[in-house]
Amino acid sequence: MKVLVINCGSSSLKFRLIETDQEDVIAKGLCERIGSESAHFVYEPAGGEKYEKDTPIPDHDEAVRILIEALTDTKIGVIKDVSEIEAVGHRIVHGGDKFDHAECLTPEVIMDIEDCCELAPIHNPVNLMGIRACMKVMPHTHMVGVFDTAFHHSLPEEAYLYGIPYEYYKKYKIRRYGFHGMSHKYVSKETAKMLGVPYDQCKTIVCHLGNGASITAVKNGYSVDTSMGYTPLEGIIMGTRCGSIDPEIIHIITEKDGKTLGEVMNILNNKSGVYGLSDYLSSDVRDLSEAYFEGNHDAERALNTYAYSIVKYIGAYATVMDGADAISFTAGVGEHSALVRRLVCDRLGFIGVKLDHDKNRNCNGAMEISAPDSKIKVFVIPTDEEMSIAKQTAEQIKIKEDKMREDKRE
Amino acid sequence: MKVLVINCGSSSLKFRLIETDQEDVIAKGLCERIGSESAHFVYEPAGGEKYEKDTPIPDHDEAVRILIEALTDTKIGVIKDVSEIEAVGHRIVHGGDKFDHAECLTPEVIMDIEDCCELAPIHNPVNLMGIRACMKVMPHTHMVGVFDTAFHHSLPEEAYLYGIPYEYYKKYKIRRYGFHGMSHKYVSKETAKMLGVPYDQCKTIVCHLGNGASITAVKNGYSVDTSMGYTPLEGIIMGTRCGSIDPEIIHIITEKDGKTLGEVMNILNNKSGVYGLSDYLSSDVRDLSEAYFEGNHDAERALNTYAYSIVKYIGAYATVMDGADAISFTAGVGEHSALVRRLVCDRLGFIGVKLDHDKNRNCNGAMEISAPDSKIKVFVIPTDEEMSIAKQTAEQIKIKEDKMREDKRE
Repeated sequence: MKVLVINCGSSSLKFRLIETDQEDVIAKGLCERIGSESAHFVYEPAGGEKYEKDTPIPDHDEAVRILIEALTDTKIGVIKDVSEIEAVGHRIVHGGDKFDHAECLTPEVIMDIEDCCELAPIHNPVNLMGIRACMKVMPHTHMVGVFDTAFHHSLPEEAYLYGIPYEYYKKYKIRRYGFHGMSHKYVSKETAKMLGVPYDQCKTIVCHLGNGASITAVKNGYSVDTSMGYTPLEGIIMGTRCGSIDPEIIHIITEKDGKTLGEVMNILNNKSGVYGLSDYLSSDVRDLSEAYFEGNHDAERALNTYAYSIVKYIGAYATVMDGADAISFTAGVGEHSALVRRLVCDRLGFIGVKLDHDKNRNCNGAMEISAPDSKIKVFVIPTDEEMSIAKQTAEQIKIKEDKMREDKRE
Repeated sequence: MKVLVINCGSSSLKFRLIETDQEDVIAKGLCERIGSESAHFVYEPAGGEKYEKDTPIPDHDEAVRILIEALTDTKIGVIKDVSEIEAVGHRIVHGGDKFDHAECLTPEVIMDIEDCCELAPIHNPVNLMGIRACMKVMPHTHMVGVFDTAFHHSLPEEAYLYGIPYEYYKKYKIRRYGFHGMSHKYVSKETAKMLGVPYDQCKTIVCHLGNGASITAVKNGYSVDTSMGYTPLEGIIMGTRCGSIDPEIIHIITEKDGKTLGEVMNILNNKSGVYGLSDYLSSDVRDLSEAYFEGNHDAERALNTYAYSIVKYIGAYATVMDGADAISFTAGVGEHSALVRRLVCDRLGFIGVKLDHDKNRNCNGAMEISAPDSKIKVFVIPTDEEMSIAKQTAEQIKIKEDKMREDKRE
């Protein structure tokens, strides 16, 4: 099934056309700086040449029009007609406690997504913009919403509740939601394949380490705990986000610095993490690693503290799952930083992790990097959120079609 | 050596006279509701009858006078003269990053304690009041300050730093300090004794579970990580304190409830924890346990989530210490709640904990409650912060006297 995957930001739109049966990417591309005069469009058909142009893209509707034009172009296109796209899969950041799986986008479902806007005021409205743009340009194509939070819907109560008045859960739905669900699901499934173990009999700790970063305990196919919480600010130390801190620190910074609460939240989201810890050296682990090897103390402090925060979550999650078969590293840092993987894994001896340092250093693509006698296997697995969205979209379309066929028969 | 231990609250003063060589408590007592007309004084000599009276106690000076009067009384007293008290040991909550051990109270040291007031604005000024009162009433007696934070001075950088801008550490000393240091030190030492292992070769996770609660990883005699942070609000879920939460939750509650930041911090300190989680059923684990056994869902939710938060810290700390020889439960809940210990230990199978459920249920005093084949031993050890203060005080006095003797010789 040909599925167009759409991932909308406030001024960007990433897309990928995927043939889900063969797991082939047919074409991919990106609209940047939407809303500005100097917008930029990139398009790349599989096996073909990259095509780029600067062109005004006033809004997301126009972005969708341009990408469909490219996909169906007689020269650079990969399909003859838009009708070849059987479904569009939309990445939606927050599904609240309503969505535990992907959903075909009916008017009711869209209203439910609107209800979740207050849980993700930056992301969900933009995701909805992408949905509406696609509906305008492709009115006859199935639309499916795939939620970043859905995979974590299986968290047990003791893992999703905070130690705050229960009324805040009842009134405002303040609970742990978790994010990066597509990635955690995809990588945990790939991990089971690499272990040669059925997905529903496998315990994996997925470390999704990008600029945003989260760790998830996946037990027998279900997310049972995850480090991000009500918002993506909680958990391990990230590129610019603080992760978990003493809540009283917020109070003290407003008082000491004479800052408003909003200003402090901005610091905790955008000036903290390894960026803040390294005394503003860089939020990029590549820069910090380079400085680390040159003996720069700011970089050492930031990366050691970052790795330590990861180690504690892994230890906690192996314990609550009553063991782990594997730990998988993914996303930018997880896939590419041998240093971070080493700093983490070298502290995991107690739970049975033994890294193969050569494999770790020379890692390329999906592979095992633990020593043969490591009790818990360690993998690097490139994440593929778009493939996960495409497959979940195809799955929903098949379920819908099966249901329609059954309804007809009755 | 006879040491008077003083533990000051804003309207209370607890005291205990201890003979440190035999670890004997000679007398103990309490002044309550200091500053009110209906203040209350309790005094109990070892082996004697409890003595109580309602009497006006306008300030801490008067409280010290009354207790000295009782201690030296010809009928109920235990000493003939105040000069028999060789030193007074004062519990001081916050020693900032200045104090890594107890200190004789010179004018310089007192100034340093004053400097730490902004780190503990409720506690340190009250502790200083107690010091000044004792200095007035016992001008010729040695005074020693024993700090709640000092034991955690050994935390490595990666454990004490937060993922926030480093300038906040440099400018405002915002870092993890940890609390309950006297208790964690005392209990970890007792644990080593019960294991029959030298203290400096022993890894213990101490769970100090009272109304306030913290967990500490003690490796070879040193605290290497602890769950309370910059303030006693962070860490595991407590009686009324939230412990660690997504920092963004503070922001959202101010917005949703139209509350000031101060009001929200008050909720997180006084209306949260198991009290808030149980929908305000109780902050007392005894009440919640009773309700739990009656099948009350509010109590189940609160205790399960509470225990789960403890399990995660234990798993993390066993990992960062590269193993643990023992887990020790102490303080009100830790010593007396077989239910909480069971809810925690039953989830620790992966790290090698196996509870002896009979021993756990019938536990009385300091004892081992793990099964013979438990890889990590589990103990219940009643904490004795006063004994720890007395012994640290005696130690400082001996060091001081040794130094004076040496100085004379030279």
